[in-house]
Amino acid sequence: MGKKNKQFVEKITAMEDDFAQWYTDVVKQADLVDYGQVRGTMIIKPYGYAIWENVRDELDKKFKETGHSNVAFPLFIPESLLQKEKDHVEGFAPEVAWVTHGGEEKLQERIAVRPTSEVLFCDYYSKNIHSYRDLPKLYNQWTNVVRWEKTTRPFLRSSEFHWQEGHTAHATDEDAAQETNRMLEVYADMAEKYLAIPVLKGRKTDKEKFAGANYTLTIEALMHDGKALQSGTSHHFGSGFAEAFDITYLDENGESQFVHQTSWGLSTRIMGALIMVHGDNRGLVIPPRVAPTQAMIVPIAQHKEGVLDKAYDLRDRLKDLVRVDIDASDKMPGWKFNEYEMKGIPVRIEMGPKDIEKEQVVLARRDTGEKEFIPLSELESRLPVLLEEIQQNLYTKAQTHREEKTSIAKTMDEFKQVLEEKPGFIKAMWCGDVACEEKIKEETTATSRCIPFDQETVADTCVCCGKDAKELVYWAKAY
Amino acid sequence: MGKKNKQFVEKITAMEDDFAQWYTDVVKQADLVDYGQVRGTMIIKPYGYAIWENVRDELDKKFKETGHSNVAFPLFIPESLLQKEKDHVEGFAPEVAWVTHGGEEKLQERIAVRPTSEVLFCDYYSKNIHSYRDLPKLYNQWTNVVRWEKTTRPFLRSSEFHWQEGHTAHATDEDAAQETNRMLEVYADMAEKYLAIPVLKGRKTDKEKFAGANYTLTIEALMHDGKALQSGTSHHFGSGFAEAFDITYLDENGESQFVHQTSWGLSTRIMGALIMVHGDNRGLVIPPRVAPTQAMIVPIAQHKEGVLDKAYDLRDRLKDLVRVDIDASDKMPGWKFNEYEMKGIPVRIEMGPKDIEKEQVVLARRDTGEKEFIPLSELESRLPVLLEEIQQNLYTKAQTHREEKTSIAKTMDEFKQVLEEKPGFIKAMWCGDVACEEKIKEETTATSRCIPFDQETVADTCVCCGKDAKELVYWAKAY
Repeated sequence: MGKKNKQFVEKITAMEDDFAQWYTDVVKQADLVDYGQVRGTMIIKPYGYAIWENVRDELDKKFKETGHSNVAFPLFIPESLLQKEKDHVEGFAPEVAWVTHGGEEKLQERIAVRPTSEVLFCDYYSKNIHSYRDLPKLYNQWTNVVRWEKTTRPFLRSSEFHWQEGHTAHATDEDAAQETNRMLEVYADMAEKYLAIPVLKGRKTDKEKFAGANYTLTIEALMHDGKALQSGTSHHFGSGFAEAFDITYLDENGESQFVHQTSWGLSTRIMGALIMVHGDNRGLVIPPRVAPTQAMIVPIAQHKEGVLDKAYDLRDRLKDLVRVDIDASDKMPGWKFNEYEMKGIPVRIEMGPKDIEKEQVVLARRDTGEKEFIPLSELESRLPVLLEEIQQNLYTKAQTHREEKTSIAKTMDEFKQVLEEKPGFIKAMWCGDVACEEKIKEETTATSRCIPFDQETVADTCVCCGKDAKELVYWAKAY
Repeated sequence: MGKKNKQFVEKITAMEDDFAQWYTDVVKQADLVDYGQVRGTMIIKPYGYAIWENVRDELDKKFKETGHSNVAFPLFIPESLLQKEKDHVEGFAPEVAWVTHGGEEKLQERIAVRPTSEVLFCDYYSKNIHSYRDLPKLYNQWTNVVRWEKTTRPFLRSSEFHWQEGHTAHATDEDAAQETNRMLEVYADMAEKYLAIPVLKGRKTDKEKFAGANYTLTIEALMHDGKALQSGTSHHFGSGFAEAFDITYLDENGESQFVHQTSWGLSTRIMGALIMVHGDNRGLVIPPRVAPTQAMIVPIAQHKEGVLDKAYDLRDRLKDLVRVDIDASDKMPGWKFNEYEMKGIPVRIEMGPKDIEKEQVVLARRDTGEKEFIPLSELESRLPVLLEEIQQNLYTKAQTHREEKTSIAKTMDEFKQVLEEKPGFIKAMWCGDVACEEKIKEETTATSRCIPFDQETVADTCVCCGKDAKELVYWAKAY
């Protein structure tokens, strides 16, 4: 590694030295985000937004394939409407940004900038659902929401963030339960197949569920530092909101019934997971399926005759096959190498006078750093395969990492020791009592991440109180 | 027309009787929009949003083709930042929604919910542009903005609306001027080729330009009632904002220079134009290129054996060719005919037992009401051609309408008479004095729509004051 290269690398803190600072450095140096003027708001820059667009487009396709329609509900919620469902308002009111004036006029009623939109959809459904023929309603929207957070970090916790929120209404509790599951699977599929992030699927404890929900399903991912990140949630409301908002329909026998509802959301937080699952000390590593640029062509000795022409020819050859770009700026190749490593572009294609002579190019992988020489004639067959290998490798690495950092604890002493020595997921049995859950959090700062769908019995007694165990829970410190 | 059909049609007011009520009826009956709880906010329903998505996707493609990147800037603007450019804050402050509290905490400084985002981009550019190498910056975002309007109507004027706003910074005034033109052409192209809406291209007078702009370019469309709708604007800022926000760069000679900026926006208002240019007394008429469903299959006598199977076969045959759907519900065909006419679906495909026997289908055009019998074997070749014919016909009709409703006035008496007898665009010469512009507005309520790029001399003197004319202006009553 040359001198310049080294200097550049030193621009970001090593993750072993200070993981939080490493994260902040990567977010900034990889050009993902800048800070907004109002506390905790963020500016998502072109490169960050291009990754989010790929996530969004893929999810949006899946939503439509599963019968959902996009809509746009208002940003504003009257205070009285927000207060209609008791648990819900208690959960969200402390973090609401309030509009009190429109122009010069003081408003008669305060208006909440939506922290989430359940009450708006409920109000709409109460007026627009009449008969079983109107069901199910399968709506989604891609929006911004505002939560006035005390401590903020780009993507992970910001005052304003971007997400999609699905809001559905069904004839039966079972239909709603199926929808809750279906959308969790859509999220898990997105995380695993596109973001190359293995996720745990399970149910949140009552303490951790969404304000107003019957139950909440979640996908949980493990970051490089052993902390967990809740990466997408799907809520089953039963008829709780329907009763608060009087959302009824006439069934086939002409009898009035409450609808059964769900909501589900995935936000720009997932960008944090992407960074902290795959990133390394050279910067971001983007899985090919969501990478805005999958292959970056860097001409070598581009001042020599014919090099740039050949590089552009190459770009034109590849552009319908993969998302390819070229950096023909007058910066040094070393600078370019570092820049695109920092940005996590999966493959760098190097091409200089010698390569042109030999009718070959160099393919350099971002994930392993390996280089291979490929005859030009084989590039169209090799490049897509290489991208797929990188995609799979990232998933496998993340899975191995998660397995290495998943431990079993049978007692509180073991729990604390493991958390200290090998932070990650802790599998431990739980009696089901919220007192134990609270005690664990108090003593260790770890929280229950989920009651996994795949249950095992790792002990007979609760890790905390020693009474009979009810179920296995995954615990971890979390973002 | 059968009795049922007639009843349904009577659900909307005839446009000749009350155009404003016709508009409101169509918006509601075609399932585009519902009203939000907070004054002037709207809920864009699935059908309305699907049309907007088509407009958005097409524009987004054009933005990317012309080198622009999407970003996401914050919803919130500190009051002090909004006040940095004097003309700009004067233009927007009266309609700002103000956030004063975050959770329980009273904020030290009021926060504006963005009415537009110039100041946020300027603040960002002032920190992120250093050298000529950083230019141009070509950013765009798809967002919601809030303007606290007194009188609101769905799409046309709402407290919150959706739009895109492009914000660019350039090295020279000329580069910025080229960008301003380029984006106006993108809008004009979108309006004419996709929405089938002929538009006038021109420059706004100083009175009507954007608050803080050097000049504003606009596309203006003529609605069915003879009123104009400003449908997209592109602003040249010169270095005005750059001076207020100190946005400078070092040029190739190492000298500090102000950047030159533009912004440009197109909003959900364009949905209003779509409705009021093409709609008729049976409801919406959607141009095929932006129609979420281009052809709707309505089976006739679907209880008869084989009809539904054949209808589904037809859908499967066509689904990769056009955006096709089928209504196999147990509603009467007459109900379905009305429903999809109301929604403006370009082509209805009817297929009953007799058609199946004859191996044909019926194609019914929404725009002309004409029906044609087509052998099944010719459907794949005929349907795309028919859609194109409809697209062209809608454009031609709108153009003819605009020509019929465009008049010349040489004196104020002529101006008033024309406005009374044949409301539409009035071409009249202007001396360039804002006093005349204001007087015309006061006496007629018509406003200057634009100084068209295609100038003509229809008289030698100003229509208002009789002094020497400077240029031709299009005038109209406007939304």
